[in-house]
Amino acid sequence: MEEANNEKESPYISSILPGWFSEISPLWPGEAHSLKVEKILFQGKSDYQNVMVFQSSTYGKVLILDGVIQLTERDECAYQEMITHLPLCSILNPRKVLVIGGGDGGVLREVSRHSSVEQIDICEIDKMVIDVSKQFFPNVAIGYEDPRVKLHVGDGVAFLKNVPEGTYDAVIVDSSDPIGPAQELFEKPFFESVARALRPGGVVCTQAESIWLHMHIIEDIVANCRQIFKGSINYAWTTVPTYPSGVIGFMVCSTEGPAVDFKNPINPIDADDSHTKTRGPLKFYNSEIHSASFCLPSFAKRVIESKGK
Amino acid sequence: MEEANNEKESPYISSILPGWFSEISPLWPGEAHSLKVEKILFQGKSDYQNVMVFQSSTYGKVLILDGVIQLTERDECAYQEMITHLPLCSILNPRKVLVIGGGDGGVLREVSRHSSVEQIDICEIDKMVIDVSKQFFPNVAIGYEDPRVKLHVGDGVAFLKNVPEGTYDAVIVDSSDPIGPAQELFEKPFFESVARALRPGGVVCTQAESIWLHMHIIEDIVANCRQIFKGSINYAWTTVPTYPSGVIGFMVCSTEGPAVDFKNPINPIDADDSHTKTRGPLKFYNSEIHSASFCLPSFAKRVIESKGK
Repeated sequence: MEEANNEKESPYISSILPGWFSEISPLWPGEAHSLKVEKILFQGKSDYQNVMVFQSSTYGKVLILDGVIQLTERDECAYQEMITHLPLCSILNPRKVLVIGGGDGGVLREVSRHSSVEQIDICEIDKMVIDVSKQFFPNVAIGYEDPRVKLHVGDGVAFLKNVPEGTYDAVIVDSSDPIGPAQELFEKPFFESVARALRPGGVVCTQAESIWLHMHIIEDIVANCRQIFKGSINYAWTTVPTYPSGVIGFMVCSTEGPAVDFKNPINPIDADDSHTKTRGPLKFYNSEIHSASFCLPSFAKRVIESKGK
Repeated sequence: MEEANNEKESPYISSILPGWFSEISPLWPGEAHSLKVEKILFQGKSDYQNVMVFQSSTYGKVLILDGVIQLTERDECAYQEMITHLPLCSILNPRKVLVIGGGDGGVLREVSRHSSVEQIDICEIDKMVIDVSKQFFPNVAIGYEDPRVKLHVGDGVAFLKNVPEGTYDAVIVDSSDPIGPAQELFEKPFFESVARALRPGGVVCTQAESIWLHMHIIEDIVANCRQIFKGSINYAWTTVPTYPSGVIGFMVCSTEGPAVDFKNPINPIDADDSHTKTRGPLKFYNSEIHSASFCLPSFAKRVIESKGK
């Protein structure tokens, strides 16, 4: 791992306000969110992407991959808690869970709150993300400390192909945007592998972009999922201030088998606080916001509900 | 009104990236949202604030007051529809409605969808905002074309003092942030005047900042409202990408009298589409998102529900 180097210029810092990080991408043209940088803590280039960590002045430490904010200490709770508990609180007694991506460990931290879970596999392609998270984000990477976690460093697409059919109760796809190493995680063959790896009535939750910015990507995801998953197909969203447009969505589906009613959680993690001793209390998720997250603005509802029907 | 002047430098443009507007404020230190500017259409200084309009490259035209984004053509629907229909869809047959602020006319446009309404008073302090909206945002300022609208240019605090007790079924406070001309609209004497102006069981909805950024301001608003409004006291929120942190909240309260259950709307505007002919369809609001908007993340729920109890 490279040493932190404050002297080295980052292309993401120097191009904008001096002393500020700005997030500019063709995925959200014409707008940029900027955070004031106190200190650059790490810059490196892995086999897959540019990795940067900085101390921001008001959002705590920030993890950047290829110029895009992945998490800040201040608001990571919203994303990690929602992408995890939306699927896991929708089924009784999840036992085997697979996380694709999620190298920072935040989803692992949330999965490990569920006492019914016996096995947590994670397949992250980029070891540098794991190492950086363990070094700079101990409250996120704490997820790796759970003895139920088994880490596989490698390609999630390849990993899934070798999983015996019907292995998992839940699969969580914590990917970056569909430009770069995560591109395949938004394509149909990947969703087919996920469906195969799930037991009947198993659930998947994938990061599914912003209703304000990416309705064309979301339309494709929904259409693919309607073809592949034969149970429930739902889109949920939540607020994450440091993600573009301030929201992030989740595609939440189940396979054929026992019916899953995602909008009415039956496995309330917030009713039991045994998990809070080591991991702290839930900051964001509760059963009401779980149900509310499936209510869509009319412009998004019209597109999503009509797609693929 | 001043002419548009592309040569003149704006303090909000020049301080940042050339060709980008950046929103920097002590109300959200350490972060800034930026929009790419195609053309500055208007810059002026009223008696109250700096007013600017520009054509952005991806959010349509944008209205800026004192360096803060008030609306963009792309996402104004979320704010205008929610701040209006949250109160008006919670009571049967609203007849008399008062709007404080809201000079752009967007809230008027939404109020005028309600066929039961007979009288719509608006008190906006800054005539330049009204004129600029009529010139550059015809789809927003269209609200002024309704013959039920009566415009009062002046101070909302003073206007309310002269309103006979119990006049209105609903008051909507569409204010800017509590720095500048809107400061008094967040203070206790103003809320007392609003309560006085409402009939028993009347409703108020006020712009109430961001749960991510302004919990200290929200705490004060909630504590004040619990003392002053003797009916229901609720906090709701929604997504607006171009507002800081990507969310905006609403304080929704009722006076003593017939009970109001804000979480279960009884006057569904989305069930009737007679209003869509002249004003276009609702883009954002529906009854499900109305109810969902009252579900709060745990960190906000703990503070808001405990406050003043």
